[in-house]
Amino acid sequence: MKRVCVYSGFLLATSTEVFAAGSGGHADPVAPILLALIVILAVAKLSSEIFERLGQPAVLGELLGGVLLGNLILLNPEWNFFEPLRAAVLQENWAVVIDSMARIGVLILLFEVGLESTVQGMMKVGASSLFVAVLGIIAPFALGYGVSWLFIKELPAELAAIVPAGFIVNYVHLFIGAVLCATSVGITARVFKDLGKLQTKEAQIILGAAVIDDVLGLIILAVVSGIITAAELGQPMEVGAVLRLIGISVLFLGGALVLGVYLVPKIMKQLSKLRTAGVMLISALLFAFALSYLANAAGLAAIVGAFAAGLLLEEVHFHGFREEITIEKLLKPLATFFVPIFFVLMGIQVRLETFGDLSVLGVAAGLTVAAIIGKQVCGWGVLEKGLDRLTVGVGMIPRGEVGLIFAGIGKSLKVIDDATFSAVVIMVIVTTLLTPPVLKLTLARAENLRKS
Amino acid sequence: MKRVCVYSGFLLATSTEVFAAGSGGHADPVAPILLALIVILAVAKLSSEIFERLGQPAVLGELLGGVLLGNLILLNPEWNFFEPLRAAVLQENWAVVIDSMARIGVLILLFEVGLESTVQGMMKVGASSLFVAVLGIIAPFALGYGVSWLFIKELPAELAAIVPAGFIVNYVHLFIGAVLCATSVGITARVFKDLGKLQTKEAQIILGAAVIDDVLGLIILAVVSGIITAAELGQPMEVGAVLRLIGISVLFLGGALVLGVYLVPKIMKQLSKLRTAGVMLISALLFAFALSYLANAAGLAAIVGAFAAGLLLEEVHFHGFREEITIEKLLKPLATFFVPIFFVLMGIQVRLETFGDLSVLGVAAGLTVAAIIGKQVCGWGVLEKGLDRLTVGVGMIPRGEVGLIFAGIGKSLKVIDDATFSAVVIMVIVTTLLTPPVLKLTLARAENLRKS
Repeated sequence: MKRVCVYSGFLLATSTEVFAAGSGGHADPVAPILLALIVILAVAKLSSEIFERLGQPAVLGELLGGVLLGNLILLNPEWNFFEPLRAAVLQENWAVVIDSMARIGVLILLFEVGLESTVQGMMKVGASSLFVAVLGIIAPFALGYGVSWLFIKELPAELAAIVPAGFIVNYVHLFIGAVLCATSVGITARVFKDLGKLQTKEAQIILGAAVIDDVLGLIILAVVSGIITAAELGQPMEVGAVLRLIGISVLFLGGALVLGVYLVPKIMKQLSKLRTAGVMLISALLFAFALSYLANAAGLAAIVGAFAAGLLLEEVHFHGFREEITIEKLLKPLATFFVPIFFVLMGIQVRLETFGDLSVLGVAAGLTVAAIIGKQVCGWGVLEKGLDRLTVGVGMIPRGEVGLIFAGIGKSLKVIDDATFSAVVIMVIVTTLLTPPVLKLTLARAENLRKS
Repeated sequence: MKRVCVYSGFLLATSTEVFAAGSGGHADPVAPILLALIVILAVAKLSSEIFERLGQPAVLGELLGGVLLGNLILLNPEWNFFEPLRAAVLQENWAVVIDSMARIGVLILLFEVGLESTVQGMMKVGASSLFVAVLGIIAPFALGYGVSWLFIKELPAELAAIVPAGFIVNYVHLFIGAVLCATSVGITARVFKDLGKLQTKEAQIILGAAVIDDVLGLIILAVVSGIITAAELGQPMEVGAVLRLIGISVLFLGGALVLGVYLVPKIMKQLSKLRTAGVMLISALLFAFALSYLANAAGLAAIVGAFAAGLLLEEVHFHGFREEITIEKLLKPLATFFVPIFFVLMGIQVRLETFGDLSVLGVAAGLTVAAIIGKQVCGWGVLEKGLDRLTVGVGMIPRGEVGLIFAGIGKSLKVIDDATFSAVVIMVIVTTLLTPPVLKLTLARAENLRKS
C-alpha cells in the first residue's frame, strides 16, 4: 500500500514545499516553470526584435537578453521582487526543467539544420569539411597549449594535493588545448539560418566541419581525460581504451549514415501507413531523439545525433504521410518555442562580475585570442575555389555549450581551478557573442566581392 | 570567484552523478529525458493507433498505454534492462521534467479547446452550464459524504494522534465529499476533439460547466481545507478568510473575461507590429501561460486560466500578423508533442496492484458509483430542448488530474490515509477510463435518436 502513487506523492511534496506560503486552493507545481518560460520567451522576443531592427542576427539579441536577465535580475539578490523567478530558473529542482527544454531546443535546431542539408550535399563538400575540421583542431590545440604554458606555471592547489610525483603541469596545458578544440555549431547554424544563407557552400562546409570537429574534439577530450585520470591514479593510460573509444565514435557516425540511407526510406514508408493524428511530426521527432540518444551513448555529443537524423531525413520521405504539410513547417512551431530557451539560458549563465578580476582576464584574453586565431587557419582547408575563406574561419569560432561542457569536465577532474574555469567561460562568451555580428560582416563583404 | 557559473556547475554535478558509469566523452544530462520522451511518445502513438483502428478515442489508447508502461516496465523492479528508463520517469530529479512537460501539455490542450470556443458561444449556453455545474457539485458532494459515512467509521490513526478532542470523523466525510466535486475537463474535451464534436451545444455546456465546476470545486476544497486546518489547530475557521477566497476567484474569472474582451484586441494589434520570426505563436503562448499563472496565483487551477485565454483569443485577433497561417495550425505541432505526455503520464500513475486489496476496493467501488451517479444529475440542469442530457451527464464524469490533486492535498492534511487515498485514485482511474468509450456510445445514440 505504501508504494501507491509514489510519483504523485513526490509532486505534491515539491509543490507543498515551494508554495508553502501560497494560496488557499491547490497550487500547481508547473507555476514556477510557467513564470520562467514567460520571462525567457518575452525577453527572447523583445531583444531579438531590437536586434533585427538594428540589422543584427536575432540570436545575438537572445544571447544578450539572457546576459541582461541573468545579471540584472536573477543574480541580484537585493531585488526581492524577482525571488520566485530566480527560484524557477536557478534552483536545482526547477532549473533542470528549463535546462532540459533548452537542451531539447538545441537538438531541434540541429535537426532542422540537418533537414536543410542532404547527405549528398555534405559529401560534395566533404573533403573541404574534413580539412577544415582537422586544421580547426590542430591549430587551437597547439595555441591553447601555448597560452596555458605562458600563463599557468604550477598545478592547481587542489590537484597538487592528490596526484603522485609524476604528474606535471603539462597535463594542464594538454587539457586546455583540448578545451579550445570544440566548435559550437549551434550559434553558427542559427546565424546562417537567420540570414537565409544555410544553402551556401560556406555554410555546408562549416556545418560538416563542426560535426567532424565535435567528433574529433570529443575523442581528444576523452583521450586527454583518460591520460589525466590515469596519471592522477599513478597508472599508465591503456592504449586499448583509447582505440576502443575512437572506434565507437567512427562506427556510430559511419554506421548511422550508411544504415540510415538504406533503412530510413523503408521505416518512413511503414510509419506513413499509421492513421493517428500527428504521426508525421512524432515519427520525425522520435528519429531525431533516438539518434541523439545513441550519439550520447556512443560518447559523442547528442547534437551530432540530431544533425545526423536531419541529414538522413529528406522531404521525400514524408510524401506518403496523410498530413498535407512539409516537415519543416511542422517543426517550426516547436523550434519557435524551444530554441530561444537555449540561447537565453546561454546568456543567463554569463556572470559579468568575472570580467572584473584582472588575473582571470589575462588568461581569458590569451585563450580568446588563441581560440579566434586558431580557427582562422580553417580557411586554408577549403578546397573549392571562389569561396570565402574568411567566412569559414569566422564561422568556426564559437565554442558555445561544447566549450562549457569541456571546461566543466576539467573542473571535475581538478585539472582546471576556479580561476582558469572563469577564464574559459569568458573565452566561450566572447567567441560566442562575437561570431554573429562578425559573420554577418564577412558574409556581406563576400557578397560585395562577388558582385564587383 | 566561487559564484562563477553556479548553474553550469549544478548541471555538471547532476550529469556526473547520473552518468557515473557512463561513456568516455561528455554525457549530456538531457539523455534520460530523451529516453523517457522516446518511450512515452512511441507508446502514445502506437496505442492510440490501435484504439483508433478499434473505433475508440485515441486518448483512451494513450491512457491505457501509460497504464501498461507504468505497471509492466517502470514499476517491475526485476526488469533491470529498463532501469535507465525507470530513473528517467520516476526519479525525482528527472521526473519533474517530464511531469512539467505533461502539465504544459494539458495547458496547451485547454488553450486549444478555448480557442475553438468563443465568449459569445459560452454566454449562449451560460445558464445551462451554471445549472449543470451547480448540480454537479451538490449531488457528488452529498453522495461522497454518504459513502465516506458508510465506510469510514474512525479517524485515520495519524490524524487522531494530533488533533484536539473536538475533531470528529465528519470532517473526513466533508473532505471526501469535496474530492468528488472535481471535474477534469481535459479528458472530455479531448474526446469531443477526437470525435470532431467540440462545436456541439452539449460540448459547449460541458466545457462551461467544467470550468465553473473547477472554480466552485476549488472554493469548496479551499473552505473545507481551511475548516480542517483550523480544527486540527483547535481554532475556529475565520469567515473573513473564506469570503476573501471566494471573492478572489470570482474577481479573477470575471475580471479576466471583462478586461480581456476589451484589452486583447489592442494588445494583439501592438504585438502584430513586431517583425521577429515566430512572434504570433509566442504572443499566443505567453498570453495562455500568463493567464494560467495568474489563475494559479488566484488559487484556481492553472487550466482554468489556459481555457480563459483561449476563450478570449479569436482567429480575428491574429489577422494583423505577418505569418500567413492560423493560430490553430501553429499550436498543433506543440499539442502533438506535449499533450500525449500528459495522458500517458496519467496512465503511468495508475498502480494495478491496488486493485488487489479488498477493503480498498470496497471504498473505491462506493466512491466510483457516487462519482458516476452524482454527475448524472447534471443532465437536469440543461435548459435547452432537444439536447442529449445523458451525454452531458457522462461528459462530467471524469475526475482526472483535478481529483488526484484534491486527494493529494487531503493526504498532506492527514485527513485521508493511504487506504482511502488508494480508493480515491482507483475512482479517478475508473471514471477517467470509463468516460471516453461511454461518451462515444451516448454521442452515437443521440445522433441515431435525432435521425429517427
